[in-house]
Amino acid sequence: MFADRLLTEVKRKGTPVCVGLDPRLEKIPQFIKGKFTAEMGYTLEAAAQAILDFNKGIIDAIADLVPCVKPQAAFYEQYGFEGMWAFEATIDYAKTKGLIVIADAKRNDIGSTAEAYANAYLGQVDLFGGKYFTIDADAVTITPYLGADGVLPFVQAAEEFGKGVFVLVKTSNPSAPDLQDRLVDGERRPLHEIVAQFVDSWGADLVGVSGYSSVGAVVGATYPQEAGRLRELMPQSIFLVPGYGAQGGKASDLKAYFNADGLGAVVNNSRGIIYAYEELDLPEAAYAEAAREAVLGMIADLRSVEAS
Amino acid sequence: MFADRLLTEVKRKGTPVCVGLDPRLEKIPQFIKGKFTAEMGYTLEAAAQAILDFNKGIIDAIADLVPCVKPQAAFYEQYGFEGMWAFEATIDYAKTKGLIVIADAKRNDIGSTAEAYANAYLGQVDLFGGKYFTIDADAVTITPYLGADGVLPFVQAAEEFGKGVFVLVKTSNPSAPDLQDRLVDGERRPLHEIVAQFVDSWGADLVGVSGYSSVGAVVGATYPQEAGRLRELMPQSIFLVPGYGAQGGKASDLKAYFNADGLGAVVNNSRGIIYAYEELDLPEAAYAEAAREAVLGMIADLRSVEAS
Repeated sequence: MFADRLLTEVKRKGTPVCVGLDPRLEKIPQFIKGKFTAEMGYTLEAAAQAILDFNKGIIDAIADLVPCVKPQAAFYEQYGFEGMWAFEATIDYAKTKGLIVIADAKRNDIGSTAEAYANAYLGQVDLFGGKYFTIDADAVTITPYLGADGVLPFVQAAEEFGKGVFVLVKTSNPSAPDLQDRLVDGERRPLHEIVAQFVDSWGADLVGVSGYSSVGAVVGATYPQEAGRLRELMPQSIFLVPGYGAQGGKASDLKAYFNADGLGAVVNNSRGIIYAYEELDLPEAAYAEAAREAVLGMIADLRSVEAS
Repeated sequence: MFADRLLTEVKRKGTPVCVGLDPRLEKIPQFIKGKFTAEMGYTLEAAAQAILDFNKGIIDAIADLVPCVKPQAAFYEQYGFEGMWAFEATIDYAKTKGLIVIADAKRNDIGSTAEAYANAYLGQVDLFGGKYFTIDADAVTITPYLGADGVLPFVQAAEEFGKGVFVLVKTSNPSAPDLQDRLVDGERRPLHEIVAQFVDSWGADLVGVSGYSSVGAVVGATYPQEAGRLRELMPQSIFLVPGYGAQGGKASDLKAYFNADGLGAVVNNSRGIIYAYEELDLPEAAYAEAAREAVLGMIADLRSVEAS
């Protein structure tokens, strides 16, 4: 049961921090890239190997500190199928280190096609009559614009395989209001509240002993004024909260994203952790230690607000 | 310029039919699968090779008849990175046969991440300081829930590389109304009309000599009552129309999707063409001829309505 597994890890590690694994080749230390280009040239294969090697360094440095990681599919897919090899290998590696893996893919399609994505990310695909787990992440992010029948195949796969789903409700980007804040229902509420109600109902059958559902919601750290209302509308959903750090979300704004039990959200940081060596002005060779340092700083930052 | 290229091919081939390449391993003829499983076993690699081989047969059979094909990413991604290899190889092959390729990926994310997807599908990725076209499709479908900053990186890549974008406006699935038909603006119009207005403005700078823009819209064949209004709101956008055939869309409903010039839309059919051998009760070995037969039938079906 995904929600229970995730919250057990949040409690065990004592923090809701999630580390985003968004590799950008141009920011991967030269000593890593050189290892592979020397052998393979300036190829996609070398890029994929460098990405995996970089991620392993980050994962080794932070696995004892945080409950989960969130690889962002776009940064792998841009290197084509070789990049997707690194995506899958990163997910496998993180799982062997005891981390829960949320694949940030924001997939979506009509029912029969959504089923293929759900098979890919959470479930099993038919392989010549046999069954095969392909990407096999613990959870995946999805987009709700197509409505229920584009979402339910993911919810069904989550139920069948003990996995989770995070539905975009209110995203962290500046243009999020373009559609998400349009007033509906006789001008009474914004569209994202409709999505929140759907999320609450889609997740009703997937509530674990923790009291939380395996159908969660993406609610950006940059819109704290809406978090309280969304918390009310989705009391049993775990919020995946992007936007802390580089995008401007602050720890002092995060209280409303959690329930009174201090649970109910995981807070992601990507750039602020995996490229912390740049900000801390450390040599590239110290990138993993710098990531660990940044995680410890973020854990303390979130705790200071909790305690206040 | 994507819109001009596409419309030139529509006119040259004399039809707006688009063939969807949505491979399902369980429906690929045994004589194809056997070629690869004999050598590679029941592996993802054999699956990927069988998918590519199947697609090549379809492409060879229909390339002289239609302007474009639309591979659906989900059906490849479910076979992992090996599946994505088949996706890329299918796109490459279709292009060598003179077909325009619309990658149906429905990607979306916040600005900086949307840029990575735009690089992957339309543009170039940074590869150790050099530039590399990864998937290099002619166009990609995208989802608008994140608003302008999740869309504009795709529009910019389309402009820079002569590619196209199709934004989901009104999808073909039964749950499309869940969000897309919510009334906004003081109950005056459905949300999908807001998206339509955005699409019209996003595409304003990408209008070619044809008078059409390289920023198009996905408008499902199953909602003909809304097509006319959407045509008015997006006079310069090319509509990518899914839902004909298996999903219930009929040729007689399609008139409103086109402008008075008889242009402005491409109509997709996936299952009804690539698995036509099943419906026509032909042996598996005739799957490619059956697909050609089905395309000819669909071309005639669309023409009969045009003429009426």
